[in-house]
Amino acid sequence: MATNPALELLLRANQLKRVPRTGWVMRGVAGAESVADHSFGVAFISLILAEMVEQSVNEAKLLTIALLHDLPESVISDLPTPAAAYFPAGAKRKAEAGVLSKLLHRLPCAEQWHAWWQEFEDGTSIEGRLVRDADRLDMLIQAHVYEQTTGNCHLEEFWDGSDALAFESTAAQVLYKELMGLRERST
Amino acid sequence: MATNPALELLLRANQLKRVPRTGWVMRGVAGAESVADHSFGVAFISLILAEMVEQSVNEAKLLTIALLHDLPESVISDLPTPAAAYFPAGAKRKAEAGVLSKLLHRLPCAEQWHAWWQEFEDGTSIEGRLVRDADRLDMLIQAHVYEQTTGNCHLEEFWDGSDALAFESTAAQVLYKELMGLRERST
Amino acid sequence: MATNPALELLLRANQLKRVPRTGWVMRGVAGAESVADHSFGVAFISLILAEMVEQSVNEAKLLTIALLHDLPESVISDLPTPAAAYFPAGAKRKAEAGVLSKLLHRLPCAEQWHAWWQEFEDGTSIEGRLVRDADRLDMLIQAHVYEQTTGNCHLEEFWDGSDALAFESTAAQVLYKELMGLRERST
Amino acid sequence: MATNPALELLLRANQLKRVPRTGWVMRGVAGAESVADHSFGVAFISLILAEMVEQSVNEAKLLTIALLHDLPESVISDLPTPAAAYFPAGAKRKAEAGVLSKLLHRLPCAEQWHAWWQEFEDGTSIEGRLVRDADRLDMLIQAHVYEQTTGNCHLEEFWDGSDALAFESTAAQVLYKELMGLRERST
Amino acid sequence: MATNPALELLLRANQLKRVPRTGWVMRGVAGAESVADHSFGVAFISLILAEMVEQSVNEAKLLTIALLHDLPESVISDLPTPAAAYFPAGAKRKAEAGVLSKLLHRLPCAEQWHAWWQEFEDGTSIEGRLVRDADRLDMLIQAHVYEQTTGNCHLEEFWDGSDALAFESTAAQVLYKELMGLRERST
Amino acid sequence: MATNPALELLLRANQLKRVPRTGWVMRGVAGAESVADHSFGVAFISLILAEMVEQSVNEAKLLTIALLHDLPESVISDLPTPAAAYFPAGAKRKAEAGVLSKLLHRLPCAEQWHAWWQEFEDGTSIEGRLVRDADRLDMLIQAHVYEQTTGNCHLEEFWDGSDALAFESTAAQVLYKELMGLRERST
Repeated sequence: MATNPALELLLRANQLKRVPRTGWVMRGVAGAESVADHSFGVAFISLILAEMVEQSVNEAKLLTIALLHDLPESVISDLPTPAAAYFPAGAKRKAEAGVLSKLLHRLPCAEQWHAWWQEFEDGTSIEGRLVRDADRLDMLIQAHVYEQTTGNCHLEEFWDGSDALAFESTAAQVLYKELMGLRERST
Repeated sequence: MATNPALELLLRANQLKRVPRTGWVMRGVAGAESVADHSFGVAFISLILAEMVEQSVNEAKLLTIALLHDLPESVISDLPTPAAAYFPAGAKRKAEAGVLSKLLHRLPCAEQWHAWWQEFEDGTSIEGRLVRDADRLDMLIQAHVYEQTTGNCHLEEFWDGSDALAFESTAAQVLYKELMGLRERST
Repeated sequence: MATNPALELLLRANQLKRVPRTGWVMRGVAGAESVADHSFGVAFISLILAEMVEQSVNEAKLLTIALLHDLPESVISDLPTPAAAYFPAGAKRKAEAGVLSKLLHRLPCAEQWHAWWQEFEDGTSIEGRLVRDADRLDMLIQAHVYEQTTGNCHLEEFWDGSDALAFESTAAQVLYKELMGLRERST
Repeated sequence: MATNPALELLLRANQLKRVPRTGWVMRGVAGAESVADHSFGVAFISLILAEMVEQSVNEAKLLTIALLHDLPESVISDLPTPAAAYFPAGAKRKAEAGVLSKLLHRLPCAEQWHAWWQEFEDGTSIEGRLVRDADRLDMLIQAHVYEQTTGNCHLEEFWDGSDALAFESTAAQVLYKELMGLRERST
Repeated sequence: MATNPALELLLRANQLKRVPRTGWVMRGVAGAESVADHSFGVAFISLILAEMVEQSVNEAKLLTIALLHDLPESVISDLPTPAAAYFPAGAKRKAEAGVLSKLLHRLPCAEQWHAWWQEFEDGTSIEGRLVRDADRLDMLIQAHVYEQTTGNCHLEEFWDGSDALAFESTAAQVLYKELMGLRERST
Repeated sequence: MATNPALELLLRANQLKRVPRTGWVMRGVAGAESVADHSFGVAFISLILAEMVEQSVNEAKLLTIALLHDLPESVISDLPTPAAAYFPAGAKRKAEAGVLSKLLHRLPCAEQWHAWWQEFEDGTSIEGRLVRDADRLDMLIQAHVYEQTTGNCHLEEFWDGSDALAFESTAAQVLYKELMGLRERST
């Protein structure tokens, strides 16, 4: 393996291009997106949300969080949501935090980035909360696209649990409602 | 969902056709085998091992274990090997046992099958140990096939940790050595 | 090639992971299951049927038949159903029997396994008949899953010819009716 | 289904886009070409051969044969070469001829096209023989491309049986030798 | 690369098997056809149209045009239709003509084939116009097949712009109407 | 389509998940990365480069450029490099600029983002130049990964034209040399 810590991290991040999003794969979506695809989507949506919110946002921090948020999946893979119930409470989060520490520890920015990632996990900063909103929006946009392009009937459940109130920013609520409207008009 | 417990289990087992084997996917093997593909391989190899060993083997039990051995992955997916180090010791096994209980609990055979599966996990019966040997052999045969068909350089590590002594039955040791010879002749 | 007859057979069985089920492929199902996927499904369903029937069943024999039943397709591939009409009557069966003889002939169990496989072809034993039921059930479950996940309109015909009476065991009839009910509720 | 005989034939020919070339699939080539891909290759190579040969060639007939030559595989699929040995001598050819009759019988050109296709099967006209040469050349070009792009080790055997003398036209022999030279230079 | 001009062209044409049709890919069709698949379809449809029209048609020329018509995409790839609006008027056509000149220039038939291809682009001969009809028919047949097999909702727009009058031959109009009828009956 | 300009842009950006990187596809890489995969890689590498350079960098601007840099490919697709020579000089760039204007014009940030994107195209700011370095590094990292995982022989040419001097930042030069060393050690 690479011994330069920066290159080592880049090769690890590259791995996300080869981690499929499990939720789609297990529902039979052929050629499902990768975690890197999704991370791009989340970063792009974060960018747009930052333009829409009124509060002041540290965009560099916001986009760094978006790019990092699923990095632990480069080691752990994308564990299906129902799986978590069979592990001890909090085990998945701790595992992800452990992977992140391991991946970043040789870099000068390690502490900073880990703290920011934690803000995403805990929703303790405006940037962390916006990435959470973007994370859910990207999932719903993708569910809509797959419904339109594959005729898959098992994506309904992604919408069942969704709700405008579940988004923390008004900007995300607006986009969610627009998406819902679009979805209703096209069925 | 289905309310008939037998049909529900069949639909769950069918899900294994849509769970890719993570080890190959993360190493960039295009069109990697499913867990169902692998389970077929393990069951077939078990059948052959049973013919080769001298001890008396309960073949019905042996094949049942082989077909069940990865059933929990229909819910949890195929967690990559390096991931386990980031979870509490034994967490993955407990999660799998928990899934199995949930999947089988409405069936008359639940207790029996769960006990057999545990023998596989713990290696406490000849049948459980043979399926463990078959599990490893199927992985190595598949690694060999992918080396031959895809030119992937990252499969070397599957062989590094392997060793004839690691197989519990002489039958598996013999097959392993034949496979090693075949691999050496073809490179 | 391998010269050890057992390893040679295992490599041949492994080939089933790379034989796609033609019926799905020709109807445009992307990423269709392999014959190994299907064989796993048939073996798993056989296991469940054995639990459900009242007659006494030799489970070792049952599962051996399930694992062997499509082995000749590792050489012949999965000939589409309509193709058979263009070959002499019985030619496909004879070809399959010929392949099986060739594949097994160096193994001690050859005669036994070939006889069992013949019982599947001819339906002349309870085990053979249960695998036939499982073979059809796995196809219908898979057709249902593809209908749900791909929006494919050409799978209707799999149901047209199906009928509870066509299953020889009451257990399979029960599962078939449950599946039909599930399918109707979800459209 | 369509009742217009011409449209019915077009839908049948379209099916060739969904019939994978079995030889590649069974050797583990991911994303292998379709029979339509191959038929395009054969027609294109025939076009070039016609420019190179000195004899007079009926190009309309030549290209028609190239486009038709694998049409029966839209029903029968692409039977692997080793499979033929398990069917009665000539059974595959008869099956293909039977399919072709069925597919063409409502068209005015049926008799003509069937006769031309037979000339390909039997090598009884210059056009039929050139398409045979093109058929083999397309297979070898494709094998070379897959060797270059996939690192597959199982394609060697396509070259073992090949030989410049096996081509009936000097033009094909020339192209074969050029291809062999290219292949040697790139390994 | 190959230095023999004929082999060089064949390797270039072979490239069309690895150029996906962008219209389907961008609409999320998994495993979309290649340009070679499409070219086969166009050539086959041209063959049928030639049988149906009353005028005299040079079939060798017709099929040559069909096989050549998308050859420039082996270098340029299949530019999406909406992209053209962002390039200078006629730039795409000029680029294609430039590629064709480059690909053919060492062949004796270069001038002849280029002139025929131009007749396709400009619709200035019966053969060129029939291939244009076949080009559109193959796209619509394929859209129909994907609608039937994938449940994709974004293929509607292929039909919106289509119209029997848009076909120049009565033969193509007839086939188009038959296809429309078939599509309506199956929805 | 969506009428909310922000959602419309998000759906367009989502399209990048369905645009394959043409360079890999045309060289026969199965399951090649998407432009969204690549954009994630470029943004992530940009993040690392920003940590490594001594100059002061506007990270928000840097990451915005990285996320936007291939957005025009959501309409135009990923034109192969050799294609550009057949279009008028500068036509590709103008087309991309035109698409970007169209996609952004209804957003408040349009002018700002377009100016930043232009700095990437022209290399007129430190942020633009770092993204250019990241763009090339992601391509080379990916080429290395595909060489390791697919045995593809046609990726050599990506390295031929590459050179440490071609990178504008010392940070990128360092990473490039590390990557070259890694590549040499693994062959």
